Parts: sequence; structure tokens; C-alpha cells
Amino acid sequence: MLLPAEFIQLLQNLIPSDRLYLDPVDCYAYAYDNSRKYFPPECVIFPLTTDEVVKIIQLCNRFKIPLTPRGRGTGTAGGSLAEQGGASLSLERMTRIISIDTANRVLVAEPGVLNESVQVAVKPSGFFWPPDPSSAAFSSIGGNLATCAGGPHAVKYGTTRDHVLGLTAVTGQGDIIKTGCYTTKGVVGYDLTRLLIGSEGTLAVITEATLKLTPLPAARSGLVAHYQNAVSCASAIATIMKEPQGPSALEFLDSGSLDLIRSRNPGMLPDDSRAMLMIEVDGTEHEISETTTRLLAACQNSGLLKALPVQNAADLWKARKTLSPLLRDIAPKKINEDIVVPVDKIPRLLTGLSSLCKQYQIPNVNFGHAGNGNIHVNLLIDPDNPGESGRAYKCLNQIFDLVISLNGTLSGEHGIGSEKRPYINKELNEATLTLMKQIKLTFDPCNILNPGKLFP
Amino acid sequence: MLLPAEFIQLLQNLIPSDRLYLDPVDCYAYAYDNSRKYFPPECVIFPLTTDEVVKIIQLCNRFKIPLTPRGRGTGTAGGSLAEQGGASLSLERMTRIISIDTANRVLVAEPGVLNESVQVAVKPSGFFWPPDPSSAAFSSIGGNLATCAGGPHAVKYGTTRDHVLGLTAVTGQGDIIKTGCYTTKGVVGYDLTRLLIGSEGTLAVITEATLKLTPLPAARSGLVAHYQNAVSCASAIATIMKEPQGPSALEFLDSGSLDLIRSRNPGMLPDDSRAMLMIEVDGTEHEISETTTRLLAACQNSGLLKALPVQNAADLWKARKTLSPLLRDIAPKKINEDIVVPVDKIPRLLTGLSSLCKQYQIPNVNFGHAGNGNIHVNLLIDPDNPGESGRAYKCLNQIFDLVISLNGTLSGEHGIGSEKRPYINKELNEATLTLMKQIKLTFDPCNILNPGKLFP
Ligand SMILES: Cc1cc2nc3c(=O)[nH]c(=O)nc-3n(C[C@H](O)[C@H](O)[C@H](O)COP(=O)(O)OP(=O)(O)OC[C@H]3O[C@@H](n4cnc5c(N)ncnc54)[C@H](O)[C@@H]3O)c2cc1C
Ligand SMILES: Cc1cc2nc3c(=O)[nH]c(=O)nc-3n(C[C@H](O)[C@H](O)[C@H](O)COP(=O)(O)OP(=O)(O)OC[C@H]3O[C@@H](n4cnc5c(N)ncnc54)[C@H](O)[C@@H]3O)c2cc1C
Repeated sequence: MLLPAEFIQLLQNLIPSDRLYLDPVDCYAYAYDNSRKYFPPECVIFPLTTDEVVKIIQLCNRFKIPLTPRGRGTGTAGGSLAEQGGASLSLERMTRIISIDTANRVLVAEPGVLNESVQVAVKPSGFFWPPDPSSAAFSSIGGNLATCAGGPHAVKYGTTRDHVLGLTAVTGQGDIIKTGCYTTKGVVGYDLTRLLIGSEGTLAVITEATLKLTPLPAARSGLVAHYQNAVSCASAIATIMKEPQGPSALEFLDSGSLDLIRSRNPGMLPDDSRAMLMIEVDGTEHEISETTTRLLAACQNSGLLKALPVQNAADLWKARKTLSPLLRDIAPKKINEDIVVPVDKIPRLLTGLSSLCKQYQIPNVNFGHAGNGNIHVNLLIDPDNPGESGRAYKCLNQIFDLVISLNGTLSGEHGIGSEKRPYINKELNEATLTLMKQIKLTFDPCNILNPGKLFP
Repeated sequence: MLLPAEFIQLLQNLIPSDRLYLDPVDCYAYAYDNSRKYFPPECVIFPLTTDEVVKIIQLCNRFKIPLTPRGRGTGTAGGSLAEQGGASLSLERMTRIISIDTANRVLVAEPGVLNESVQVAVKPSGFFWPPDPSSAAFSSIGGNLATCAGGPHAVKYGTTRDHVLGLTAVTGQGDIIKTGCYTTKGVVGYDLTRLLIGSEGTLAVITEATLKLTPLPAARSGLVAHYQNAVSCASAIATIMKEPQGPSALEFLDSGSLDLIRSRNPGMLPDDSRAMLMIEVDGTEHEISETTTRLLAACQNSGLLKALPVQNAADLWKARKTLSPLLRDIAPKKINEDIVVPVDKIPRLLTGLSSLCKQYQIPNVNFGHAGNGNIHVNLLIDPDNPGESGRAYKCLNQIFDLVISLNGTLSGEHGIGSEKRPYINKELNEATLTLMKQIKLTFDPCNILNPGKLFP
């Protein structure tokens, strides 16, 4: 598609040239995200205010130009890519923290503020904002909201939808809506706040967010536990999650993950470990010591090799942190999923995964936020090996069927975007999908906002 | 309106006579709720299954008969009343607890199950379901969800929307939708779960709910604090809410409330107290003792008369529990609101309230869930006093303006229904309201589900 000359002219009247890219070379930097796909937009627009967003959306409606909201392009589902061409709406320059109100535990921010900037701004007052994607240092609040981001601490603190009070947003029609409120309780009208959270830029552009802050725990500590095999480890996960005072993070690494770490970091891990848990505990010193004792007991089963307290939270995360970059190196291509199953179904998931990957001869590495049952399944593919990719997608299809049969869900935090679009109807029935599509058109009658995403 | 004979005939084919009231005398018992208004439905239907709900809704669509979902009719906003006549859809006989899955902290229930029945069912396993309206013993899960009910423990545990994983519901079109999932994380498609929570029966009928359970705290204890005046008490509220480990309940009673309690319970309260806080703390014994010490310190200010720990949680609630029945007796009529302001604005709210009530000569009694800034404002009216009612509604109108000017919200837990409908556009802008109305019609194109509610 080529942008009409009149559209470009009117856009230039609206937005100064230093905030409007039209050169394909400039635009190319906005063609990709963490999905490893490429869709160059025909222009990139950098608004600074809600009113500018309104005018841009009105213009796109007039010319029926697709408009794809974008935070920092770290999404893994292709959500921020201009798949149908048109304009990319980059919110990355709306970076003002509008207010910090510690008396009421509220921070109001523009969407381009980085997650980490929020944390840095409120830490001196003793607060944090719980959503903690590993991408916190380079992903935006707008992107976090639009994907309902989560991270390791979701097991204790929940995900993005639990930590937002209200929004200002511009619908696909160009209307400014104000959702939610400034207080911790409020039931006036429909909950549009949470309808927009996780909507991946398909309903409205978030231009301001009222975030609910949480007091920082006094301290953090933890323990690691090593197991003879994945199944005994998985059963420990279920036992740990029965404890009333649970962990603040509970991360699982399978034998594939451990071998990968060992291959580059000799000596970091015990040789005999075939599955590992990293368990973080937070609170006062007294709470930590009580909880640690109970969780150490919960780790015990016949498959346990050893379980040890780790004083320093940074040490705890060392193995896990080395893993992500290794995964990028190991295979030229990988399919990276973030399925979820009920915690007591993790043993069956892991058994099923390993037999499916054996059947289809696909190397795989699994790890993740086990306390929520949220497992990152990585299928490693060599694109030079003809047939492997085809086998991998057949395997993936069956993995999704397995997840659904275990009463799980296809995505815990990455969202659908374009990546998981073909599979969404495994989980959602026809009536529910139809209704969602109708809601989409209610917000965005000309289907200009991130068109084609989410729905098959 | 009179129900068409053919409609009645078809309804009788669908639903046996012991689950279908057509006699006006029978129907009259379904004409009212806690709003003190009366709108008798022309029939009351008691479905037992989701499929029956589908067929009833299809039939109502065919004949354009208004259908008002009803739990146990304890709502205070008139939400369950058949204001435009037609049929009342009572979910009170769908009372099965479908499953209790403590390993995954999930309970699945039909909508007619009482809140208290859920608590009783899961307590032996060490769990509770946090939403705790004072009406827990006689309000239904469906009603709790449709109003996003909350209660005193919301200050620590949040409200209904924080404790539901997924729903089965039938839209106004008669389609069965399944929302959310069975796990604690999930981002597949739009968050219809929370869109339905708080939608007061205007979008869909909830026929099954997947509830997230929380471990019971090991123990409960607390303290009471008495103040010379409301302003010093309110400033203590703000100080208490700055503590990282806060209370599990923080209830405020003003001098009007205290006088009312004293009038019937001599000796229960100190004579000089003009404002009181009831502070509950939960957790392990050690947590309770640490938190109690810190909260006792936070209570101190120049207006404090005395602050005392109370070992027994039941004693703590005694004064508060005597209040509700007294309020019903005291005035032949009262306007009972549940506004919310940010906690640091409570002093300004209370000062403003008292000067407005003085100006309009309306006796008033205020108390509530102060930790969330959620204050129940009761304007007491004698209907035999001509002019008082008019003055009271003028006063109320200004109270709402005050609340909005303090960045508050009109309703913390009771919802809009018909009671607060005339005021909703003080809080929601035109575009937001229009969008909500469009969403309503997306779910319910013939506008048969609880028509006329919510929107002015
Ligand atoms: C190394 C790495 C680690 C990661 N770890 C995690 C993790 O632990 N947990 C997790 O949840 N995710 C993780 N992610 C994925 C990603 O970081 C998150 O999805 C993040 O929330 C995306 O933010 P972003 O600003 O990059 O948004 P983008 O990728 O730019 O956009 C994501 C989606 O949001 C929409 N969007 C963006 N801004 C707005 C707005 N203002 N209004 C409306 N829609 C908007 C876009 O259209 C798109 O659909 C990781 C990614 C990387 C690269
Ligand atoms: C003494 C007393 C104390 C109270 N204390 C509190 C309190 O502390 N906190 C609080 O939040 N509320 C309180 N309430 C209000 C009331 O109890 C709550 O709103 C409760 O959630 C209503 O439940 P219900 O089953 O009675 O619903 P109803 O009153 O029958 O209905 C309420 C609304 O929900 C809709 N509805 C009901 N069931 C369904 C369904 N299955 N699907 C779709 N829509 C449905 C109805 O159409 C209506 O709009 C109190 C009420 C009383 C009388």
C-alpha cells in the first residue's frame, strides 16, 4: 500500500518533521519486534499529547490508513508490527511522569515511560510497581498495559491488570475516554480499564495511565532446589503452592535449560541436577525466615537432590539470568511459547511435552514462572534442516491441544498478536470470538487500529 | 405492560410451573431490593441450567420482553428491579458448587450460591474467598460479581474483580460465552471477565463462576482508636495507610454514628469520643504483633483520646455491627451513599460534608471503609417534613460535586442501578458514556437485559 499524497500532506501539517518519519530507511527501524518478523510501516509518527493522538486517529479514519500503536517494540507476539502497512504510532516520546502521589500510592504516567523509570521514581519513597517483565529496562508502560505484562513476581503480586486504577485513551474513532478512577475502589460503569489492558492496541491508544503502587518488601532472600527429574520437581511445585505464605517468585528450569547453562558456565550447577527451582521469598526478616523454613520442607520429596537457602537475592537469579542470552545463541530459530496450566497439572504437561518433542524430533528447552503454571516452551529449529520447521509447527499444534486438555491457556503474558492468532479458537468458542470482534468494531468502526491482530 | 399470551404459553412449555411465577402475589416478593423501591415483575423465572437461560433469553428477544437478572435482591441500587416490567430472572435456584480444587485454589460455582456458602465450603481446607460484603450470609455470588461487591477487607484483599478467574455467561443475544481461564495468568483475547464484573446484569447473565481462593490468615486481632474530632481521626487514616504492612480492615465511625450506638448501648463507647477507628490486623502471631505496634504508633496525633489493642476480633466488630440495624430504625427514610475519595482527601471530604449538611439542615451519619477512602454517607430524612426531601437531594447533588472535585468516585461498591443513574455523567465524560452504551448494545442488541439501568 502507498500512503495517499493528501494524507501525507495533512499529516505534515499536524506533526513537525522531527516527529514524523517518512523515509523507508528511518521507518525500517520500526519494522520489527521480538517476534523476529519484519513489516516496515510507511511512516512513523511520534505524538506528544493526547490531542495529537486524536487528530492522527481522525486523519487515519478519513483515509482508512492502518495505524499500529507501538511502545518500545519488545513484544514477542508481533503486536506492534505494521502487518498491513500504513502508519506506526510510536508512543516512545510521551515520557512524562505526570505525578507521584505516595500518600495515595498512585503514579500517573504517559505511555512512553519505561517500566524501570517508574520503579526508579518510586523506590526512594519505599514503593514499587509490581508488573515485572524481564524487559522492564526497555519496555514501556503503554506496552506493558496493552499486553497485560507479567513476570516472575506475578505469583505473589499478580499481573498488570491488578495494578492499574484508570486510563486516558483514544478510541479507534478518535474519542478521548477516561476509564476507572483514582481510588482503590470504584464501580461506576463498565470496567473499560481492564478491557483495554491486554487488548494489544486493537481498541484504543493508551495516552495516560494511573498506576497503583505497592510498598517495597523489607528484604528478599530465597533458596534453590535441585531434583533428579522434572516430575519430582513439578510435584514439589504443587506442594510449595499449597503453602499459605507462598514464594514471591518460583522459577523452574528443566534439564535442557540446565545443560545449556552448564555448557557455557562450567561449575555453576551441580552435575546431577535434572531440574531446578529458584524460590524467592520477600517480607520482613522474620517472615522470610519463617517462610523459608516452610518452603524448604515443601521441597522435600524422593526426587530431591538438595535444597539450600541463598542469602543474596542477586545470587539466586544468576543461573536464570544467564539463560535468556544463551537461548538466543543456541538455535538459529526458536518457537518461544508461554503456555499456562493449573499448577497440579505441571507434571502431566512436562511428561506430555517431552513425549511430543521426542515424537516430532524437536529439541526443546522449558523453563518459567512455575508458581503460576506459566511455562516458556522453546522449540529449537535449524532452518537449514528441511522438514524440521514443519515438524515443529505440528508439534506446537499438539502442545496447544495438550494445554487446553489440561484446562490451561495458550498465553500467560506474551499475548496473541499475529503469532498465536491461528490458535486462538482452540481456546475461545465461536460466540466469544464473535463478541470480541464486535467489541473491536465498537471501539474502532473503520478497523484502523492494529488491524488483523488477535483474531484469526 | 402485559405479557403476550403466546409468550407465556411458550415460557410454560420451557419451564415447569414450580419454577415459573405468574401470579402477581407471588411476583410481588420479587418487586423490591434494599433500595426501598418497588417494581413488580410480571413473571419470575427460576432457571436451573445455562441452557435454560439461553432459551429464556431467546424467547424474550423474540417478544422484546425486558428480563432482569436477580440474585438475592440485596442490592442497594435498584439493580435487580424490573423497572420496565417484564420478567425477573431469579438465579437463586442455581446453587451447585460445581468443584472445589484446593490444589489450584479454585472453586467453581453456579450464580445462586451464597457468598457465605462458598466461605463455609472452603474454610476446612484453610481458604476463603476475599469479597466480603456485610450481606455475605444472604447475597449470591452472581450478585456479588454483577456489582463487584466489596467489604471491609477490601483494603488488604481488593474487591470481587480481583478474585475471579473466569465466567460462563449468556449474552443478551442468547449466546453462551466463556471468559477468562482456570489459571492465575492468561491473556488470550479481551478481558470479558472483568467487563462483566460490575456490569449489573446489563450485558449478560452469569451462569457459572471460577473463583480464585486465598489462604486464610493464621489469626486476626486489632485495635480501636478514639479521637476528639473527625479531622484528627481522618489524618490518622492517612498516616496508617502509609504503612507498608497495613491493616486488613480500617473502619471509620463519625460522631453521628457513635451517638447512635451510645443511644441504644450505654457504656459501650467512651463518652468523649467524637470519631473512632476500628483497625483489624491479620497474619501470623508475629506479624500481628509487629503490625499492631506500628499501627498503634500511626494512630498517635494531638487529637487522639486513646488507642487500645483488642485481642478478640469479634469484640473489635461489636460497635460496627450494632450500627447497621440502628440506622434502619433511626429515620423513616435515608439516602445511603458509598462515595470514595483518595485517603489523603478524607479530611476535606468530612469538613465539606458537615458544612453541606449544615447548610441544607440535613442530619447525617457517616462511616465506612476508610482504608479505601470509601465512606457511607447517610442523609436522614423525615418524609413528613415537607421540603426536607428536596433539600436532601440538593445536598446530595453537591456532595457528589465535592467528591468529584476531590478526585473521587460516586460509588465504591453499591453500583449505579437506577439510584445513581442521574449522576453518572458527573463522573464519566460523554464519549465514555456513549461507548459504554454501544458496548451494552453489542452484548444485547434488543436491549432486553435489565433495560434502562446504569445509563441516564
Ligand atoms: C528480553 C525480553 C524479555 C521479556 N520478558 C517478558 C516478561 O517477563 N513478561 C512479559 O509479559 N513480557 C516479556 N517480554 C515481552 C515484552 O517486553 C512485553 O510484552 C512488553 O509489555 C512490551 O512492551 P513494549 O513497550 O515493547 O510494547 P510493544 O512491543 O511496542 O507493543 C506491544 C503491544 O502493545 C501495543 N501498544 C504499545 N503501546 C501502546 C499504547 N500506548 N496504547 C495501546 N497499545 C499499545 C502494541 O500495539 C502491541 O500490540 C519480553 C521481551 C523481551 C525482548
Ligand atoms: C444489609 C446489607 C449489607 C450490605 N453490605 C454490602 C457491602 O458491605 N458491600 C457491598 O458491596 N454491598 C453490600 N450490600 C449490597 C448487596 O448485598 C450487594 O450488592 C450484593 O452483591 C448483591 O447480591 P444479590 O445476590 O442480592 O444481588 P441482587 O441484588 O439480586 O442483584 C444485584 C445486581 O446484580 C445483577 N445480577 C444478580 N445476579 C446476576 C447474574 N447471575 N448475572 C448477571 N447479573 C446478575 C442484578 O441484575 C442487579 O443489577 C449490602 C446489602 C445489604 C442489604
